[in-house]
Amino acid sequence: MSFTVRNDDFEQATRESFARQDHMHTLGAELAHVAAGEVDIAMPYARDFCQHNGFLHAGTIASIADSANGYAAFTLCPPGMDVLAVEFKINLLAPASAPRFVAEGRVVRPGRTLTVCLAHVYGLGEAGRTAVATMLSTIIQRPAA
Amino acid sequence: MSFTVRNDDFEQATRESFARQDHMHTLGAELAHVAAGEVDIAMPYARDFCQHNGFLHAGTIASIADSANGYAAFTLCPPGMDVLAVEFKINLLAPASAPRFVAEGRVVRPGRTLTVCLAHVYGLGEAGRTAVATMLSTIIQRPAA
Amino acid sequence: MSFTVRNDDFEQATRESFARQDHMHTLGAELAHVAAGEVDIAMPYARDFCQHNGFLHAGTIASIADSANGYAAFTLCPPGMDVLAVEFKINLLAPASAPRFVAEGRVVRPGRTLTVCLAHVYGLGEAGRTAVATMLSTIIQRPAA
Amino acid sequence: MSFTVRNDDFEQATRESFARQDHMHTLGAELAHVAAGEVDIAMPYARDFCQHNGFLHAGTIASIADSANGYAAFTLCPPGMDVLAVEFKINLLAPASAPRFVAEGRVVRPGRTLTVCLAHVYGLGEAGRTAVATMLSTIIQRPAA
Repeated sequence: MSFTVRNDDFEQATRESFARQDHMHTLGAELAHVAAGEVDIAMPYARDFCQHNGFLHAGTIASIADSANGYAAFTLCPPGMDVLAVEFKINLLAPASAPRFVAEGRVVRPGRTLTVCLAHVYGLGEAGRTAVATMLSTIIQRPAA
Repeated sequence: MSFTVRNDDFEQATRESFARQDHMHTLGAELAHVAAGEVDIAMPYARDFCQHNGFLHAGTIASIADSANGYAAFTLCPPGMDVLAVEFKINLLAPASAPRFVAEGRVVRPGRTLTVCLAHVYGLGEAGRTAVATMLSTIIQRPAA
Repeated sequence: MSFTVRNDDFEQATRESFARQDHMHTLGAELAHVAAGEVDIAMPYARDFCQHNGFLHAGTIASIADSANGYAAFTLCPPGMDVLAVEFKINLLAPASAPRFVAEGRVVRPGRTLTVCLAHVYGLGEAGRTAVATMLSTIIQRPAA
Repeated sequence: MSFTVRNDDFEQATRESFARQDHMHTLGAELAHVAAGEVDIAMPYARDFCQHNGFLHAGTIASIADSANGYAAFTLCPPGMDVLAVEFKINLLAPASAPRFVAEGRVVRPGRTLTVCLAHVYGLGEAGRTAVATMLSTIIQRPAA
């Protein structure tokens, strides 16, 4: 899919906003890919963010998928605008027990007000990558605070 | 609604499982209420789990709502069974900027295999409580690992 | 919950808009209750709208629940505005085999742009009512076409 | 993606089950494509299934998307099994006003008990195809009734 870019500095704007997300810093998450309508966020496995069986908590997986989708939408915003998640739905496909994870957020339909994004989350290990979750999100564009 | 309880020690089982969720400990979250088909989880606001505007990250809110719904389902399980989130959908209703939050998970329909739960998340402050999010979840019951 | 009403004629406006929904007419659906932030839609069981086992098709149940939620949001709109479903998520709780169904749509959080609604769908029979589905929806308010 | 086929006659089984869905017949819907893990369902625009502005009702679009996802899951079932939608979430991307529609259901993750599917719905017209909706579904496999 090809998108209309409204901010020539979208990559820098995305990196600056991401740097202000304390939650991403706490999770050890980093921006692995930024392009028009596409953002990947990677994080290592960490016991601190797991549920009772030692798998990454669904809310942790949702955190990186939500930020990946939100920033994918953000790359298509004009300067001075910000994004906010309206809602998302996530299917957990397999226990999240890999050493590393990546959430790949992609814009499905951009809009002036609402943008719809889809993220696939994968566990990355020696045996390759395993699908861990799929998230479908609605994101609203608002003037930055 | 009234539910059939299959484990007389459901409260203790719930507290023990919750104590093993490192993610809940990391968030400073605690069990605020446990009854048949009902679990509340509370946590304080903390900058470490916020997004770029200083509101609690949607994934953080999802974390306590997901655990509240999962444990609400767990209270109705027979001994030896465990629960796993299949999927959830969350609507973010207002910026999460209160000093304290509570996710109230309730069983909507219990089942042998699948249980459906609904959680309301509120911000708690001096001015009373504000609705912050609503989550609708599907939870699967499995033999404990 | 109590809501601010912005259109004194909301009930008439709701009934007029509903009357223009050919799909509701096709399903034999009718408005069973209209109040500020609340709309119920009822329909009879009909083989024409069933899946392969003779239960009402999930899309049929979704139809009345989506209209119930949309019109619940519509009751709170100012004159000259219309509503559109942005997205919804529905959990099917039990096979839809009752002689009659009712979808009860309720506003969870009203908003200038987006309104969140929750609907419960019940099967109605001699043995009372059975929960059939739960829907959580996001609705956008737009100037009427 | 490549899937394990457990029923050599999955195409015939799919076509037979689809033929028993009265709702699909009522909508004028037909199976446009059946392969392992993939089912497309097409239907013409019809005023009878529209909302108040003359667009296909969200519940109608959900009907073909839900059946496409359900049958995509069904193609991977062993003989003697049936499928049931547990839940789905649909984003409406654009008004559904094309002369013809197709819902393309694809298995995202097959499972013994639960299968996750994603459907894209397109409007088909002289100007090509337009994305109308995206649905993410959870489907359960059960012994046929």
